[in-house]
Amino acid sequence: MGRVRASLSVSADGYMAGPGQSVEDPLGVGGRALHEWAFRTRAFRGLHDLDGGDAGTVDDRVAAEHLVGVGATVMGRHMFGGEVPWGDDPWRGWWGDDPPYHHPVYVLTRHARPPLAMRGGTTFHFVTDGPEAALAMAREAAGPDRDVSVGGGARTARWYLAAGLVDVLDLHVAPVLLGDGARLLGGLPDLAAGYRVDRVLGGEGVMHVRYVRTAG
Amino acid sequence: MGRVRASLSVSADGYMAGPGQSVEDPLGVGGRALHEWAFRTRAFRGLHDLDGGDAGTVDDRVAAEHLVGVGATVMGRHMFGGEVPWGDDPWRGWWGDDPPYHHPVYVLTRHARPPLAMRGGTTFHFVTDGPEAALAMAREAAGPDRDVSVGGGARTARWYLAAGLVDVLDLHVAPVLLGDGARLLGGLPDLAAGYRVDRVLGGEGVMHVRYVRTAG
Repeated sequence: MGRVRASLSVSADGYMAGPGQSVEDPLGVGGRALHEWAFRTRAFRGLHDLDGGDAGTVDDRVAAEHLVGVGATVMGRHMFGGEVPWGDDPWRGWWGDDPPYHHPVYVLTRHARPPLAMRGGTTFHFVTDGPEAALAMAREAAGPDRDVSVGGGARTARWYLAAGLVDVLDLHVAPVLLGDGARLLGGLPDLAAGYRVDRVLGGEGVMHVRYVRTAG
Repeated sequence: MGRVRASLSVSADGYMAGPGQSVEDPLGVGGRALHEWAFRTRAFRGLHDLDGGDAGTVDDRVAAEHLVGVGATVMGRHMFGGEVPWGDDPWRGWWGDDPPYHHPVYVLTRHARPPLAMRGGTTFHFVTDGPEAALAMAREAAGPDRDVSVGGGARTARWYLAAGLVDVLDLHVAPVLLGDGARLLGGLPDLAAGYRVDRVLGGEGVMHVRYVRTAG
């Protein structure tokens, strides 16, 4: 069976987004700084059809790993974005017509909606049965040889971490302090007990830590 | 006037010590791992009269800065340690007869006690008037040309950070997750708003971030 992986950028004080998140400002006050390390890389920019970026750096290599070997993604409504209920001309995600996933993406929501097939092989499926059901669907879609990626928002990622369902956690710790906002870390004693540090890589103004699950 | 500096090691999820702190286990479960980066350095080991250690590394240079230019230290009872009330043969700190400070140290406590003069110029003063009074005494002792260092435990350091009284914060972010314990970071919106990142240094399995106060 494939693994469940999460690759998440957090502030030094454990937030995945700053205070005041909204549709206009999905990362909240100061939250964009968490992703500066990725925005600078060729790998991230290529995935999002942008030119330029640094190639061959530690950060670029780490960014390039993100979706390699991944056959399905699970994300929450805060990562997919948009307003609910969906309405007549519903939100189609932040990523344009050809999202970077190129595989099925299971979006947790309380509002049912037909699947949304995009260009390039990404299909968004809207799951109203909760995170366990979404993960089961993603595992099924990924098959035995590919991994499932768990994305944000913070509540979704924290739920899977707290449930011990993430096998590999790649944490990208940015040096910023957000003070408040969408909390990923802290108050997760089972996470601390059940994982070991597998590697630590120093990027440019960011620390990449890989945790691997050790306990059942 | 000198600056107020704090140099603190924290876990990736914002704790300064793990759960279950006690006199036998002052850093709590897993807490020792926060300081491994320092234990490995020549600078830290020399300060504590220990042989060996890596010299000239990023971590060694950062460890060496800790008490340079500092004329007085403030710390809480969790860093000084021991049991209160003090009793007939009171606790004299973790550091032996010749502590690494070599200047006056103001210990916050609710239990009065005469000053304790150690070898090498360190005198512990026990302050029962609260953190503002302790800082005023430390500033006075340090004089206009030297800095004051604010130490732990987490409650003490968090108090000074929340009050905006720290001018320079050196945070050493270790890749471990403690999950629970003595929380330093998170829930400090004023800290996030009032500081800028001055430098980020990648050590061996640790990220050193210096924040400098911009507001107030």
